[in-house]
Amino acid sequence: MTEELEITFEKLSFCFETRKFADLRILLLDMEPFDIASFMENNLDEKEQIMFFRLLPKELASDVFVEFDSDTQERLIKAFTDKELKAVVDDMFLDDTVDIIEEMPANVVKRILKNSDPENRKQINELLEYPDDSAGSLMTTEYISFAASTTVEAAFDKIKKIGINKETIYTCYVTDRKKKLIGVVTVKDMLLAEKNELIAHIMDTNVITVETLDDRENVALKFTNYGFLALPVIDKEGCLVGIVTVDDAVEVIQEEATEDIQMMAGVIADETPYLKQSIWNIWKSRVPWLLLLMISATFTSMILSNYETSLAAITGGAVLYAFVPMLMGTAGNAGNQTSVTVIRAVALGDVKFKDIFKVILKELLAALLLGLTVSVVCFLKLMFIDNLYNEISVRVALIVSSVMWLSIVMAKLVGCILPLIAKKCKLDPAVVASPFMTTIVDVLSLIIYCSVAIAVL
Amino acid sequence: MTEELEITFEKLSFCFETRKFADLRILLLDMEPFDIASFMENNLDEKEQIMFFRLLPKELASDVFVEFDSDTQERLIKAFTDKELKAVVDDMFLDDTVDIIEEMPANVVKRILKNSDPENRKQINELLEYPDDSAGSLMTTEYISFAASTTVEAAFDKIKKIGINKETIYTCYVTDRKKKLIGVVTVKDMLLAEKNELIAHIMDTNVITVETLDDRENVALKFTNYGFLALPVIDKEGCLVGIVTVDDAVEVIQEEATEDIQMMAGVIADETPYLKQSIWNIWKSRVPWLLLLMISATFTSMILSNYETSLAAITGGAVLYAFVPMLMGTAGNAGNQTSVTVIRAVALGDVKFKDIFKVILKELLAALLLGLTVSVVCFLKLMFIDNLYNEISVRVALIVSSVMWLSIVMAKLVGCILPLIAKKCKLDPAVVASPFMTTIVDVLSLIIYCSVAIAVL
Repeated sequence: MTEELEITFEKLSFCFETRKFADLRILLLDMEPFDIASFMENNLDEKEQIMFFRLLPKELASDVFVEFDSDTQERLIKAFTDKELKAVVDDMFLDDTVDIIEEMPANVVKRILKNSDPENRKQINELLEYPDDSAGSLMTTEYISFAASTTVEAAFDKIKKIGINKETIYTCYVTDRKKKLIGVVTVKDMLLAEKNELIAHIMDTNVITVETLDDRENVALKFTNYGFLALPVIDKEGCLVGIVTVDDAVEVIQEEATEDIQMMAGVIADETPYLKQSIWNIWKSRVPWLLLLMISATFTSMILSNYETSLAAITGGAVLYAFVPMLMGTAGNAGNQTSVTVIRAVALGDVKFKDIFKVILKELLAALLLGLTVSVVCFLKLMFIDNLYNEISVRVALIVSSVMWLSIVMAKLVGCILPLIAKKCKLDPAVVASPFMTTIVDVLSLIIYCSVAIAVL
Repeated sequence: MTEELEITFEKLSFCFETRKFADLRILLLDMEPFDIASFMENNLDEKEQIMFFRLLPKELASDVFVEFDSDTQERLIKAFTDKELKAVVDDMFLDDTVDIIEEMPANVVKRILKNSDPENRKQINELLEYPDDSAGSLMTTEYISFAASTTVEAAFDKIKKIGINKETIYTCYVTDRKKKLIGVVTVKDMLLAEKNELIAHIMDTNVITVETLDDRENVALKFTNYGFLALPVIDKEGCLVGIVTVDDAVEVIQEEATEDIQMMAGVIADETPYLKQSIWNIWKSRVPWLLLLMISATFTSMILSNYETSLAAITGGAVLYAFVPMLMGTAGNAGNQTSVTVIRAVALGDVKFKDIFKVILKELLAALLLGLTVSVVCFLKLMFIDNLYNEISVRVALIVSSVMWLSIVMAKLVGCILPLIAKKCKLDPAVVASPFMTTIVDVLSLIIYCSVAIAVL
């Protein structure tokens, strides 16, 4: 938070506490909705929030409301009168209303729908039909469209008349009589054209679109690749049904990255900001993987118990135990490096399932080289460092370091194949990442270690 | 890739091979620069790329050029004549030129600068002075600004005259005579206002800005929070020196997420798309952490060797070895869940160093609860599953499961404290994440295990 903002927050608190509401409103008019929401959530208690919200200048109320997290939204809605709720809902963009509704319990949803204007209610209901995470659920129906026969001047008139309530005016869409999308025209194109030019002559007919059921990750990727301000969403017939704007895409990109990062670490994704998560929610999001992985470690315990007697019986076998964590750890790290790299490449669209053989070849070569480096260093470490506290024969050092090599190669192959197969099976590659991969790599590296040791010693 | 795009790619290949260059140009005019670049990089060899580039319609050449990865750019520049280079460079936005220059070897940089227009060269040199990863290195100087006394009509005339070469025209800036930023006005505001209205009356004087030396991560965060299309960059005196547009912010957000994800997995960040990375580069980005972690595993080997004789001497002690991977693994997973969650929260600005006690308290409570759940399940697993292949006394099961509890609590505390301390020391929290944390947690959980075992048995 900048210093300037901190000072504004102090002023807000002062005006609110001393009931200087006129001054408060003047301050608020100069602020961004996001900052007002974060002031209210971090500096006011629940009762104060409701009182403060009622003091907001009318034109700011809905903009601030959409910035709250869903708990605060739910609390406020419950405190609103029907009239207040209607004022807030009518002033919101439809995609924001839909986002909020998706997080609310059924009775709150009912109240929101009851208090929205009939035309909006119909559109909200349509938007709610689209699956979560689809382009349809992300889009808004508040876009501007023209017929191709419109002149630039008429187009500007239309923008002036209806633009204020549209999510963006800078990219406009050209549709035919059946609402089929036939072109796109930007305000920049229109400004640089003559007044009486037809839209048909300046529009771009090569339109990049997404379909209503496309995954929102794909939508975000198109924004990254093409740098657009808005993307049109079409249905199966090619008719324009909505648009997604870049600000929503930015949020999706951040959320998808957070989700992937959390899943790679075995945490079930949760969008709530960390400090607002309850202990119970934290427990719920972390306990499944922690338990699953703990239980799956039964395999490693079994293998170790199984080889225990055989290893202990061999001269020099007992010393091998000390290196189990190092071997399993290194294999796990090696596998993790690969799986995480491949998962991210898949998410960014750089790698597809059809590239699997290229990826395997690349990882195999890299693994042979990496494995060689690490094993040589490991051999030297065993002879010169570990020898200081434990007697290690050249033979033992050779076993450990060559198993290290094999394990790294194995781990990297598992690490690159698993996420690609997951993608092919339409599972989220991030889910199979660290957690599953670790278990497989642990078991395989232990088996390699124990069997090589017994064979050689 | 969509089906439609695949067909276009096939047509391009066909026209290129059969030398139907007129048809080729018609196809190209209807394509997005990003798609043309990806066609050239994936379907043409090096010689063909140069030939193909020379066939591009003039107005597309620079737009396509900025979409190439830096290897292709370097190769093309080396093949260009001075005249060709000048044409491409003059047509690029300055921030793109700077991005490209930052990736090129010195002799190529010299040639680019020599071939750019003197006025641009001066500005490029200024932009190059800003540190990498700063708002200054991200911005462009191609924005539109007005005096406050301009009328809306005059403002539109200015946009029509110079807008074509500006990165964005939709957000314009209002500066005083000393270039101090005093307001911001959007084309939407201007379209909805009367022709003879003064900009002073419709501009927004509460401008959210960034400073030239601000970290680019902060710039990206402001875009996420406020949903702007552009952000003005000011110097220490408050003078407007450039703007950052949302398309660049989107790229930064993706890159920062990729960087964090890679670093959390012990891979040194690399922006090159995966399939284009050489084996050598992969080796370089992965070997340091792999070696460091392998060597730091010396600690676990030392601890295990140290306790080996004592444990083996105790009745029932030997069986404990089998559970070392499970304990260390679970502690590592528990710590990883926390560190990754906290690192991401820090990156998103949800958590700051001053929240450290809140975070520790939250994690401690969550850890006690999670640890309890996992230990109870672990105890049951030991008694009913592991007992099937190994004789386990109630006492051993109690030792293992209570150490499990302690280790989870310890790991979660380490996992939340480390990234916050790193942030405080101005280190990247993602770097200390998994790699360092794992080593610390491994060592501590082993020490707890061995000492509890010896004390009890």
